[in-house]
Amino acid sequence: MLVASTLDDIEIATQMADKAREIALRYFRMELGLSMKEDRTPVTLADREIERVLRDMLAATRSGDGIFGEEWPASGPDLPRQWVIDPIDGTGAFATGSPLFAALIGLLDKGVPILGVIDACALQERWIAWRGQATFNGTPCRTSGQQNLRHASIGSTAVHQYSDADYAVFERISSRASISRLGGDSYAYGLVASGHLDAVIETGLKPYDYLPILPVIEAAGGVMTDWAGQPLNFSSHGDVVAAATPELHAELIEQIKGH
Amino acid sequence: MLVASTLDDIEIATQMADKAREIALRYFRMELGLSMKEDRTPVTLADREIERVLRDMLAATRSGDGIFGEEWPASGPDLPRQWVIDPIDGTGAFATGSPLFAALIGLLDKGVPILGVIDACALQERWIAWRGQATFNGTPCRTSGQQNLRHASIGSTAVHQYSDADYAVFERISSRASISRLGGDSYAYGLVASGHLDAVIETGLKPYDYLPILPVIEAAGGVMTDWAGQPLNFSSHGDVVAAATPELHAELIEQIKGH
Repeated sequence: MLVASTLDDIEIATQMADKAREIALRYFRMELGLSMKEDRTPVTLADREIERVLRDMLAATRSGDGIFGEEWPASGPDLPRQWVIDPIDGTGAFATGSPLFAALIGLLDKGVPILGVIDACALQERWIAWRGQATFNGTPCRTSGQQNLRHASIGSTAVHQYSDADYAVFERISSRASISRLGGDSYAYGLVASGHLDAVIETGLKPYDYLPILPVIEAAGGVMTDWAGQPLNFSSHGDVVAAATPELHAELIEQIKGH
Repeated sequence: MLVASTLDDIEIATQMADKAREIALRYFRMELGLSMKEDRTPVTLADREIERVLRDMLAATRSGDGIFGEEWPASGPDLPRQWVIDPIDGTGAFATGSPLFAALIGLLDKGVPILGVIDACALQERWIAWRGQATFNGTPCRTSGQQNLRHASIGSTAVHQYSDADYAVFERISSRASISRLGGDSYAYGLVASGHLDAVIETGLKPYDYLPILPVIEAAGGVMTDWAGQPLNFSSHGDVVAAATPELHAELIEQIKGH
């Protein structure tokens, strides 16, 4: 049974996701003034407007909570509850007209990710999860039962930007998998939660990339950790593996170690 | 002005695309009995059913034309007009629940691709083009005016399956581009035709992968050739470059040569 405070948090997260979608779709496939960060990530006007509006919504309703976003410094980083916002995950997709981008919204309580939203704005698909309860994408969703890498489908994103060592890890795993797909961004994790894709492996992520996703994977029956198999938190290195089952997760960790 | 026979061909291609979409969406995200070819491409039931139905439609209305598809041997390969069918391009996407797959339908007259359709079934988006006339995606679409690689966005698909030499080419180009995105399959070419993405570079394609796409790029103002800059035909090697402008295309060909 969900308690009242849980419902409130889900309600606010849902309103935030609605707002993020509305703003994103106003800018998607429009002529944009892109600015380039040093890491060459395109940052759209939408990115900044969404985060600003979502921060305002939280400031008005959750003044006792901290906020960790992409575009501005963290506010209240020592508070027990932390909202995590990636206004547009997959800015490369967004900037090139591909609908595989999403707004990510998460909530951590004393370091534990307890709520997560992946809103694939242009596809009108939303995954919303509460730790220990369920992941919904319209209806409750479950990961696939896939336990063996050789029958599994694997997703990743920008493997051409990996270090040589990380690329070798992806090559080893994809050569052993049944299917491997690139370019998924956070949408790929939604596909894992819904049982269409069996695993995702990525490196170089930031906390706002992976913390909102963790409850979506776990509450659907999957496992998501760093490459050493350790729990993900704000100080993780950003190497992430998500799998449909504990067995597939264990096999992926072994492959990452090079066994 | 489109002549009557042109309209007829477009009408038939449109009916074929409607049918392909209907069948694809009946199987998309359903439990599938996947069989694996030696090349590990997942072949879905949808793939076979679409091609069979489309071949039947052509046999009933275009008995004087040849057909080149993915699943069965070519029929009438010496006839002057050749229909080219890829029932599901992006079978990896389809099999993992990603909407970035498409049905491709093309028509060649004496070796020249004159009609092309990219139908992104799950996204309800269709590009349809007639050589020398226009590319439509609901409304007429145009490629971007991008002439310089350093400001350009570049797409590719399964770079982890490239040979080392081909991967080096992609790495060189993507390191010089503004944005590079993976996993696009044929949808990426539609994004080029609509001016959202500036170029696509791929290797290992089959004639049914690239021949239906060529009119979509060209009639929208772009250029599409093999990696040597030569026109694409049935006997091309399957290395393809599509660019928004002749200038960007020329720069990509230079980069491919290693200059």
